Amino acid sequence: MEVQHSRNGIDSLTVRLMPTVQREAALQEAQRLPQIVLSPLSISDVELLAIGAVAPLTGFLTHDDYERVVSEMRLTNGQVWSIPLTLPADREFADSIKVGQRIALTEPDGHILAIMTVQEKFGYDKQREAREVFGTEEDKHPGVARLYKQGDVLLGGPIEVIDLPSNRPFMENRLTPAETKQYMAAKGWKTVVGFQTRNPVHRSHEYLQKVALEMVDGLLLHPLVGETQAEDIPADVRMKSYKVLLDNYYPRDRVLLSVFPAAMRYAGPREAIFHALCRKNYGCTHFIVGRDHAGVGNYYGTYDAQRIFDNFTYAELGITPLMFEHTFFCMKCEAIVSSKTCPHDKADHLVFSGTEVRRRLRAGEPLPHEFTRPEVGQVLIEGLHGK
Amino acid sequence: MEVQHSRNGIDSLTVRLMPTVQREAALQEAQRLPQIVLSPLSISDVELLAIGAVAPLTGFLTHDDYERVVSEMRLTNGQVWSIPLTLPADREFADSIKVGQRIALTEPDGHILAIMTVQEKFGYDKQREAREVFGTEEDKHPGVARLYKQGDVLLGGPIEVIDLPSNRPFMENRLTPAETKQYMAAKGWKTVVGFQTRNPVHRSHEYLQKVALEMVDGLLLHPLVGETQAEDIPADVRMKSYKVLLDNYYPRDRVLLSVFPAAMRYAGPREAIFHALCRKNYGCTHFIVGRDHAGVGNYYGTYDAQRIFDNFTYAELGITPLMFEHTFFCMKCEAIVSSKTCPHDKADHLVFSGTEVRRRLRAGEPLPHEFTRPEVGQVLIEGLHGK
Repeated sequence: MEVQHSRNGIDSLTVRLMPTVQREAALQEAQRLPQIVLSPLSISDVELLAIGAVAPLTGFLTHDDYERVVSEMRLTNGQVWSIPLTLPADREFADSIKVGQRIALTEPDGHILAIMTVQEKFGYDKQREAREVFGTEEDKHPGVARLYKQGDVLLGGPIEVIDLPSNRPFMENRLTPAETKQYMAAKGWKTVVGFQTRNPVHRSHEYLQKVALEMVDGLLLHPLVGETQAEDIPADVRMKSYKVLLDNYYPRDRVLLSVFPAAMRYAGPREAIFHALCRKNYGCTHFIVGRDHAGVGNYYGTYDAQRIFDNFTYAELGITPLMFEHTFFCMKCEAIVSSKTCPHDKADHLVFSGTEVRRRLRAGEPLPHEFTRPEVGQVLIEGLHGK
Repeated sequence: MEVQHSRNGIDSLTVRLMPTVQREAALQEAQRLPQIVLSPLSISDVELLAIGAVAPLTGFLTHDDYERVVSEMRLTNGQVWSIPLTLPADREFADSIKVGQRIALTEPDGHILAIMTVQEKFGYDKQREAREVFGTEEDKHPGVARLYKQGDVLLGGPIEVIDLPSNRPFMENRLTPAETKQYMAAKGWKTVVGFQTRNPVHRSHEYLQKVALEMVDGLLLHPLVGETQAEDIPADVRMKSYKVLLDNYYPRDRVLLSVFPAAMRYAGPREAIFHALCRKNYGCTHFIVGRDHAGVGNYYGTYDAQRIFDNFTYAELGITPLMFEHTFFCMKCEAIVSSKTCPHDKADHLVFSGTEVRRRLRAGEPLPHEFTRPEVGQVLIEGLHGK
């Protein structure tokens, strides 16, 4: 928020972007290379790789790393990694290139993002990846559907990033891991909790953030702004709602609002681990894992995304997950509480489904102030009606 | 609360009480020994030693332990210990006994509590202990005043406990460390936060407990019921207020109410460490340290009792302190918050001094429901007027 931005919002601490001189040469080289047009997901992944958000990865997974990530949630070096970051290609393109060859990764309009050295090309079992990563083979699951539609060959190898994607909204709040760490250091925060969201922050989420903030120095409010499902509230409306919330209800010097450029995979438990590992890269020491984190439909148990953390030690993860149960306003408690802190009946609890919240917002019906801060509700209603 | 009590509330896991057969012999021996009449503080200390609340201590400090505790907050074996648990005697009594001799420790009415083997008797510098332990030499400090009035010689050595003190109110809620651990294990609590208090639990304290409880399995509400200052609200009234609070506002299966039989020393930071170490013995994994913990008057800085924990690693303490700032109800936040979580002005905050709270309660004026649960306020007003 007060961070000074250098060119393109990327400062010199960012490891994966090449210096200008090299960049010119690379661009010339790339124009002569075979080009692969990236999907929105892969474009997000290139940005994550470029800015160091998915360290230790420096490219798309090669065969052995892919296999071990899918089956064991680890890289071949033993480090925890839960989501296969892969570059799928159709068979025709894959057949046309040789192992060891360099290729250019581009956006649909031809904008060259990176050069990849193809170390390996390999087939893979999509049903198996679906089962292991998403816990289902059903193509109604949006992550599985995307997987089934993507190319049948995976290209593995390191990438050299020439340019960041063209479409990077929220530049003022699009800090790289190096920049968020710099900000945290300047603020003197020793402990920072990260909060992932793809939704508006209602009072129950504010409560989780503030519960954590009572015990740590700072909060990184880190909304995901890559590709999400159509029914989710658009990122620009959400960003406005976050700003009005922070301006009115949070101490300015305890919170950093920045966006997380990843796309949603809806991989539930595995994505919770992924989200935590990425936030460690952004400088967080703690990460909030709520109910059904990164879930969709009824594919995951409510607390599966918390239980998965039991498989790893703190030393392996390097970030402390903070697990919370379902929270809600209780009329008798006169406060936001959870089943761990409230003894009262459901009849005393103010709970709306996501569907009902969206219905009210679209109908322009305000949500109760115990559920959503009035300023936030106003921004959401206006944002949805301005569309 | 549901724990089965054996004789005198002490179950067989309690290490420092002797079996009945030995007890008879010990009692006969004790009747022939020189007797020292204990102060209320020392009577509390004997109970703490008897039930294992001050493990690893098994008696009153000998010279080298005393010296190192006073100067470095450690026992001679290197373990952290912040408060000198000593048995003061007047010089006349001390001169009348020999090193190696056994003596009987009694209550003022002659009730024999324990036999002590006097391993050492030694003089000590009261001003130095005052300075190091209480941070002041002023005899207006209640802990320092008590220190100055006590005997000039310290008797060190292990004790064998024959009987617990006669005056042990709240037997239903006077669980030993073995009993609280048993309860926690039966409940399946892996993480338990301990809350020390010598005051009623107002909503700001309830908030701290519930913030912690959102992240751990259980809460040990552990009010201190040993000697406190005359102005503090009497323990029996407080106990009633805790019970009505828990009955109305806490999930039954997440909280254990039990009393901590220690006396207050008002040693601030050092007593916070002591309180944490004792709660570890009771089975707690976490311990709440608020503002001015165990403080009195203006002798300690608001957060001194938190900062002192920086001197020790988790491995040394074996319990995680949870540090909180001043919390209060904010009209704009419509919630209990702290300066870490609320950006609004003091004018929006509902804050009463302890003096004002006591004045209102004594005058029968109810406290706002945002400050104190109405049921709790009612019990406190009735309790103070029934006296």
